[in-house]
Amino acid sequence: MVSPATLVPMSLPTTLTVPSGDFALRRATEADLPAIIGLLTDDPLGAARDDPSRLAPYRAAFTAIDADRSQLLVVAFSPAQALVGVFQLTFIPGLSRGGATRVQIESVRVHTDQRGGGLGAAMMRWAVAEASARGCALVQLTSDRSRADAHRFYRRLGFVDSHLGYKLAVTPR
Amino acid sequence: MVSPATLVPMSLPTTLTVPSGDFALRRATEADLPAIIGLLTDDPLGAARDDPSRLAPYRAAFTAIDADRSQLLVVAFSPAQALVGVFQLTFIPGLSRGGATRVQIESVRVHTDQRGGGLGAAMMRWAVAEASARGCALVQLTSDRSRADAHRFYRRLGFVDSHLGYKLAVTPR
Repeated sequence: MVSPATLVPMSLPTTLTVPSGDFALRRATEADLPAIIGLLTDDPLGAARDDPSRLAPYRAAFTAIDADRSQLLVVAFSPAQALVGVFQLTFIPGLSRGGATRVQIESVRVHTDQRGGGLGAAMMRWAVAEASARGCALVQLTSDRSRADAHRFYRRLGFVDSHLGYKLAVTPR
Repeated sequence: MVSPATLVPMSLPTTLTVPSGDFALRRATEADLPAIIGLLTDDPLGAARDDPSRLAPYRAAFTAIDADRSQLLVVAFSPAQALVGVFQLTFIPGLSRGGATRVQIESVRVHTDQRGGGLGAAMMRWAVAEASARGCALVQLTSDRSRADAHRFYRRLGFVDSHLGYKLAVTPR
């Protein structure tokens, strides 16, 4: 695709209709931060990595995400208007695969009360459709080896674990 | 880190001194494209995915990469001034892990004639140092399951394959 993926207008806000109800999907705002961090913390891995009592670093990160045209942080609201889902898309232009732009998905979370109702699958299907609408050729994500439920979830959606996901923690200077 | 990672000045150009010689490292320019695509094609997987005879889509992709402050496409030159290495860094601000910015590495290639001389490891060590200098907390990449040599290479550098890498091809619209 010739046009930069990030210049296409976004198809948000929208509504995801799933078996458990209608969920509103929109771009995250700073006011959503406490609820988003709540979701990140309510997770076996996130509990050790995230601390909702210190909001300042999350506010700085949100500002960087919101100002970066390659990033799209999306939140989902339940019929009762609670923030129950989050994910982040990163649009990565690249040379390989014929100059394809890829979309990377990070920080996918659905509130425990809402799991199994189809919201997570609808969020990911929306992300894939959005990637296609923006002219991208590939959607990718990594999932911790310990998240067996997540692996089944992504395979059901058609994702293939063709790769190993390598991480290296570094000390920010 | 409070400051957006992408606002820190880049530590390029530079020189990587390795056992096989001194290699110049700099940001890629459009004039480098034919040599970069040559590297992408000279690869068991890239050979099926990339076609150097059609330069137009690569030019469009290069323009998008070069205009995106979150992307850094780096090339390495041999002592004989041939373009023999390439990799792309993407700086991804995020909320998880305490609002950490992560660096994703894509399209790592070293010319077959230069493998085993230490250039690839020096490129990746530079990328990790650059991530740290920009205030990032994590460096990540995925590697196709079939690339056994690459897996040994990344493990030697300290990367841990803690994750599975899922991909889904989509049709650009």
